[in-house]
Amino acid sequence: MDNSGRLSFILLIVQAAVAAEQPKPKAPTMAAVLAAAAPGDWRSLDPENTLHLELSSGRVVIELAPAFAPRHVANVKALARERYYDGLAIVRVQDNYVVQLADPDAEKPDRARKIRRGQKTLPPEFERAFDRSAPFTRLPDGDVYAREVGFTGGFPVARDKRSGKMWLVHSYGMVGAGRDNAAESGGGTELYVVLGHAPRHLDRNVTLLGRVIQGMELLSALPRGPAPMGFYDKPEQLIPIKAVRVAADLPETERSGIEVLRTDTRTFQRLIESRRNRSEDWFHFRAGHIELSNVPIPVRSKSAGAR
Amino acid sequence: MDNSGRLSFILLIVQAAVAAEQPKPKAPTMAAVLAAAAPGDWRSLDPENTLHLELSSGRVVIELAPAFAPRHVANVKALARERYYDGLAIVRVQDNYVVQLADPDAEKPDRARKIRRGQKTLPPEFERAFDRSAPFTRLPDGDVYAREVGFTGGFPVARDKRSGKMWLVHSYGMVGAGRDNAAESGGGTELYVVLGHAPRHLDRNVTLLGRVIQGMELLSALPRGPAPMGFYDKPEQLIPIKAVRVAADLPETERSGIEVLRTDTRTFQRLIESRRNRSEDWFHFRAGHIELSNVPIPVRSKSAGAR
Repeated sequence: MDNSGRLSFILLIVQAAVAAEQPKPKAPTMAAVLAAAAPGDWRSLDPENTLHLELSSGRVVIELAPAFAPRHVANVKALARERYYDGLAIVRVQDNYVVQLADPDAEKPDRARKIRRGQKTLPPEFERAFDRSAPFTRLPDGDVYAREVGFTGGFPVARDKRSGKMWLVHSYGMVGAGRDNAAESGGGTELYVVLGHAPRHLDRNVTLLGRVIQGMELLSALPRGPAPMGFYDKPEQLIPIKAVRVAADLPETERSGIEVLRTDTRTFQRLIESRRNRSEDWFHFRAGHIELSNVPIPVRSKSAGAR
Repeated sequence: MDNSGRLSFILLIVQAAVAAEQPKPKAPTMAAVLAAAAPGDWRSLDPENTLHLELSSGRVVIELAPAFAPRHVANVKALARERYYDGLAIVRVQDNYVVQLADPDAEKPDRARKIRRGQKTLPPEFERAFDRSAPFTRLPDGDVYAREVGFTGGFPVARDKRSGKMWLVHSYGMVGAGRDNAAESGGGTELYVVLGHAPRHLDRNVTLLGRVIQGMELLSALPRGPAPMGFYDKPEQLIPIKAVRVAADLPETERSGIEVLRTDTRTFQRLIESRRNRSEDWFHFRAGHIELSNVPIPVRSKSAGAR
């Protein structure tokens, strides 16, 4: 391509961007898109990669992301299976940021929970090699932080061909492995969940390993901690963790029985379009754009699918 | 500029964008930026445009935005002054979206709270004319939804020279006037506050009229409502509004005594830079970018300033 050809190409991109700001013809609503979905547009959670975080208020269902953080996912499952988390607590809820579970006695060697089969720390899995073969539903409106963003396997993902990397991003409900200053100081003994505006400056700084699929409101509505960074400062403020279980270890009747919309489908692309240009009567101005963390990934009960 | 000149210009922009993705030299931390701030970098809230929302759990301080929504701000103040809101309730908390206060009996003509001096509805103030003279601290990294974003008078703002408009955006803590389907059906009798990832598709669809400056955690940690759209479905779930007051109507000793960092200062620009490239030891990858709703606007008590 010579310079003038390249110029035309660039101007085309600019024109497309400008055109995208104009009001669009009405897209179907998300409800209409989902009503028209085929059974195969939905998937069950893989019980071997589904975690149940049990609180006295109910169950939080987390889908793990072995494609992005294989060692951390394996370790969190090992820790769950040795009952490492049971009886630990939510120790931190920082408004518009994260909720974090940990061993409240982690800093007291004589009282800290012992690890038997899992690892305390692991090398970081902040990003992985760019994989062209992985299905990627790309968002058309760009991103402030990354070259390309979209969805892979139900997770919000950013990627960069130039650096040859792709990584999970810190959208609402994403679950990561807390760490100290050293990159290799995390491992999954402390887990945090994003509960505010996506803190994207954490991307590529922490190992994300999953996403809350159901029960997020049990975490997001917890009292914020009064100490710096939202830590609770009195033992009675701690929220006890009753148990963390791998769904595969439970009888099927005790699993959560939910399905998630596949993100590698035409239905999901239609959903994105319906959210870029909301056609409900309430909307007078249609944005014509959507940001990664504003794309919902619908969930339904399996019984809804069977009806 | 001929085509090749224009091409060079465009390539320069592209190169600048690429350069911005490289790690940057260390910026000072936000703490260091604030420690170096001059007294004049801070401003007191104007008591005539400050609202106190009193809950049994404490006070939420809201700064009103008369520069963007003059009629709605005047009406909300009139409603507060006739005690319209006192005894109403938080009727809706939708996870990752909004909390909303309203008259639970609004649909029952015989029981609905009567309005005496205020207005029930007003023409929309979704956007205003682009004002070149208004101070605007522009963010350098673009935005998914708008041509330009930044801060004006302490509020997150988008603007578009082409359409000649500027508008407040739905960042965390922004306060708006709920409405029905008609654009002119809002007015301030129902107020909502953003408590999740910025729902930017609401921009230019609702009149935003202020921002929560302090006490956001009293709203964001409320139980989510079980009914559709997060509405509470039982009277006992409602969170009573003790009072809404204009700060100017209170003796100075009962006002909140806080100061906000001015957004039209070099200090605020340095703060933005410190957040684009976090230099705390914890960070291994510096984003080099920042999104509008991720920029904090620091608050301090006046006594801190006096020390």
